[in-house]
Amino acid sequence: MLVASTDVPPGMEAWQVARKSIVACVSDLAAKGVRPHSAMISLGLPKNCTQPYVEGLARGFAGASKEFEVKIVGGDTNEAGGLVIDCSMIGFAGGKMPTRGGARPGDAVVVSGMFGLPPAGLAILMRKAAAAGAFRKQAADSVLFPAPRQRFGLALARYFSSSIDSSDGLAISLYELACQSKVDIAVDGIPAADGVEKFAKENGIDAHELVFHGGEEYEIVATIPKAKLKQAEAAAKKAKVGLHVIGRVRRGTGDVSVGKKPLENRGYTHFSRR
Amino acid sequence: MLVASTDVPPGMEAWQVARKSIVACVSDLAAKGVRPHSAMISLGLPKNCTQPYVEGLARGFAGASKEFEVKIVGGDTNEAGGLVIDCSMIGFAGGKMPTRGGARPGDAVVVSGMFGLPPAGLAILMRKAAAAGAFRKQAADSVLFPAPRQRFGLALARYFSSSIDSSDGLAISLYELACQSKVDIAVDGIPAADGVEKFAKENGIDAHELVFHGGEEYEIVATIPKAKLKQAEAAAKKAKVGLHVIGRVRRGTGDVSVGKKPLENRGYTHFSRR
Repeated sequence: MLVASTDVPPGMEAWQVARKSIVACVSDLAAKGVRPHSAMISLGLPKNCTQPYVEGLARGFAGASKEFEVKIVGGDTNEAGGLVIDCSMIGFAGGKMPTRGGARPGDAVVVSGMFGLPPAGLAILMRKAAAAGAFRKQAADSVLFPAPRQRFGLALARYFSSSIDSSDGLAISLYELACQSKVDIAVDGIPAADGVEKFAKENGIDAHELVFHGGEEYEIVATIPKAKLKQAEAAAKKAKVGLHVIGRVRRGTGDVSVGKKPLENRGYTHFSRR
Repeated sequence: MLVASTDVPPGMEAWQVARKSIVACVSDLAAKGVRPHSAMISLGLPKNCTQPYVEGLARGFAGASKEFEVKIVGGDTNEAGGLVIDCSMIGFAGGKMPTRGGARPGDAVVVSGMFGLPPAGLAILMRKAAAAGAFRKQAADSVLFPAPRQRFGLALARYFSSSIDSSDGLAISLYELACQSKVDIAVDGIPAADGVEKFAKENGIDAHELVFHGGEEYEIVATIPKAKLKQAEAAAKKAKVGLHVIGRVRRGTGDVSVGKKPLENRGYTHFSRR
């Protein structure tokens, strides 16, 4: 459920808003290795919504339907206080689907890409931070035109012992896997996207904060048993997707550490902002 | 998509709001003869939503899940300006499903029940009209605790040439079938629920208005070919549901008449209220 008042950053156009509501579902399915089949979209529109804006939304839905090969088969329209888009997506799992609770001690903790770009982009779009050139564009694009890791998920889910898509931040995703699997997770370093550490330094922001507690990355976070890691790496190469090992699963009770320090269990969560 | 600001009448409790969001989907599926299998529920909650209210919603979802034998398998929670509940429901059609476009000249127009009770109930709950005793309770209950016509739909959909659930009002439903099927529909009289005409008279309201242009009935409106009507009536008797013939399908181009007068094509529609 995308709610404009909290989920739409400044500068995001109508078609991008519509696309984002679909991306969020595509990403969820991708983490489970499932190709989308069909989607139902419910639209709550404010009274003052203009026709060009609604047409922009429609263009965004049509484009995303094509981009991700998902049929929009139904839904609803309603009047609401502000723009609300709820997308429900259906796909059919070929076989067994990885859950959040299957990580075992010894498994590798892997991600589909590095973290921190969308929180940097959001800070830039909200004029709370500055950046220039390629990084600025890349960071803003990661917010306005997010890329779910569909190819990664479809190619590699068969090797996952557990998986989740990381939309509320890396820390929350790691804790979710650790808690559901009743294991500890030890992350080796800070898996920061290129340029994030430099951007953080220049703007007096903590890079650790951006990478672990930002969110909106739509990266896949998963665990892969040691015995399957070689195969998974070969499959990743074949599918031309990056597969990054960022840590290990250990015996435990749901704790997550980075280096030798415990990681705080928080990220972007609703109802908790100050 | 249920939006509290427009879809929740005064006096409706949290559990009833939650139940209503599920009833709307159960009714849609029932009109097609489909049993619900699973539902995904997205919840947008306002910042000032209290814990007892959220617990009430949860009770309502759990109760409706049991009542209609539908598993709630997922969904989302979000912060929103006002309460929004979006329910997407999935069921599997056993065979061919009736569409809105299959009515043919000569077919009988049938309904699962009579109309006008929920609009009367809404007027009572909003203190725009008065009623007493059994009718008051029956009318208010039809709004607060609507009964989708699941048994009717499951027993009879195989006989329908076209069907729709009538949540936006009988007139809109009849026009939708007539237009999609490219036929005319002639309704014989005013299919008013017991007590509606008396209530209308006592409150200076037009009964015709309540019956055709009110909405929220969750009755099924369908057409049945003449040759199958006897079988359908036997099936209705066996399933212990009422099957009411209210008119005939005629050759035409999408017009609907009541007696000899054309019916206005309007009901409760969003974005058109003055």
